[in-house]
Amino acid sequence: MHLRWGHADEVEVLAFDIFGTVVDWHGSIVREMSALHPQVDGDAFALAWRAGYRPAMARVMSGELGWTLIDDLHRRILDEILPQFGLAHLDEAARSHLNRAWHRLDPWPDAVAGLQRLKRKYIVCTLSNGNLGLLTRMAKRAGLPWDCVLSAEVFRAYKPDPATYRGVARVFDLPPQRVMLVAAHHDDLEGARACGLRTAYVERPLEFGAGKVKDVSPQAANELHSRDLLDLAEQLGC
Amino acid sequence: MHLRWGHADEVEVLAFDIFGTVVDWHGSIVREMSALHPQVDGDAFALAWRAGYRPAMARVMSGELGWTLIDDLHRRILDEILPQFGLAHLDEAARSHLNRAWHRLDPWPDAVAGLQRLKRKYIVCTLSNGNLGLLTRMAKRAGLPWDCVLSAEVFRAYKPDPATYRGVARVFDLPPQRVMLVAAHHDDLEGARACGLRTAYVERPLEFGAGKVKDVSPQAANELHSRDLLDLAEQLGC
Repeated sequence: MHLRWGHADEVEVLAFDIFGTVVDWHGSIVREMSALHPQVDGDAFALAWRAGYRPAMARVMSGELGWTLIDDLHRRILDEILPQFGLAHLDEAARSHLNRAWHRLDPWPDAVAGLQRLKRKYIVCTLSNGNLGLLTRMAKRAGLPWDCVLSAEVFRAYKPDPATYRGVARVFDLPPQRVMLVAAHHDDLEGARACGLRTAYVERPLEFGAGKVKDVSPQAANELHSRDLLDLAEQLGC
Repeated sequence: MHLRWGHADEVEVLAFDIFGTVVDWHGSIVREMSALHPQVDGDAFALAWRAGYRPAMARVMSGELGWTLIDDLHRRILDEILPQFGLAHLDEAARSHLNRAWHRLDPWPDAVAGLQRLKRKYIVCTLSNGNLGLLTRMAKRAGLPWDCVLSAEVFRAYKPDPATYRGVARVFDLPPQRVMLVAAHHDDLEGARACGLRTAYVERPLEFGAGKVKDVSPQAANELHSRDLLDLAEQLGC
């Protein structure tokens, strides 16, 4: 693929969505559940937990809830769904440990090697709705070699709020076209594009598990379309 | 040295001051000046530039100036001192390049190896008044292996404001005694200690150059006193 940028537009920063794009939240929650609570349907549990995620952030962004970190939103949702899965009896320590499962998500098999290659040429940072503590502990456990951990927590706004995409460009004192968002979600990329960022889509057909394969067909509006992060490194000449 | 903490108080995060503690700002500015403007006394220039740093942050914290990043404060000070050094003629590109010298500071010789050892056991993050873009570019060039880059920019307050020290503990959802500030400046450590953080002093006798050797004698209030980051790793059993 021929890249369309010249020197003044050269991309310097690759900002990555995390949940689903870099790490396999579904498979990791299933793994945690089969170790901790094997009697529960891990696939259904993971999907139920994640289903509460967007509505919870929407309540924050509408002002109905004050500013709340993802760790706390995950915990609210967890407390809501536990009874539906026969786990209403879990005590505080068990709930708290389970909630930290989001700090222990495994990377997709290509992620660490892909990021190591991309990092040679670009600043690689997170741009996730996950909070800084979650992202840092996840990276340390998984070996994700970020140059910088950025989060909705820094900008006090959740994606796709423009403050997040513009915030990354501002942090690095760059015009938005010198930042590229890498994500497995078209709405996230659309939000970034509306702020002038470049966009790269990553196929993650199994994001929601093998029972719910995702359509990963290309959308023309994205500058790049990649199978995984190794393919993205290849396309970017890293 | 016997460490005085048990499991519940175990340190999980080491937060590092940067300018002077991890990187040699004086020697690096002298190096930049001897390459770019060899006719200027680099030692005097570095000291003059740095002398404007605290007063500039004080103006921000008093409210006299609105929130301003260190890159911009460095630039204001630079513009003020250039005429005193016969450099009033520098154009915008030259000033901008020189101002970025703070992104190109070299680490002290022990810093990268020390951090790599400390990182095996602890979360290692920055807690600097430098802005995120500056700290990230510096780390990438110097090979500083941060798990997370934290800055006054995240907390919108400059050290020694309590919001910065408490902010680190909050980011990692830890009581303050599980965070240790590592710094070569007693006032910074004092600010951290007042917020309940643990403190480790690092000797950097040449922070201000060989012409102005710094007193690095131990102060009893600090839990640890170390010659450099390798010595700190040794004391912490890394």
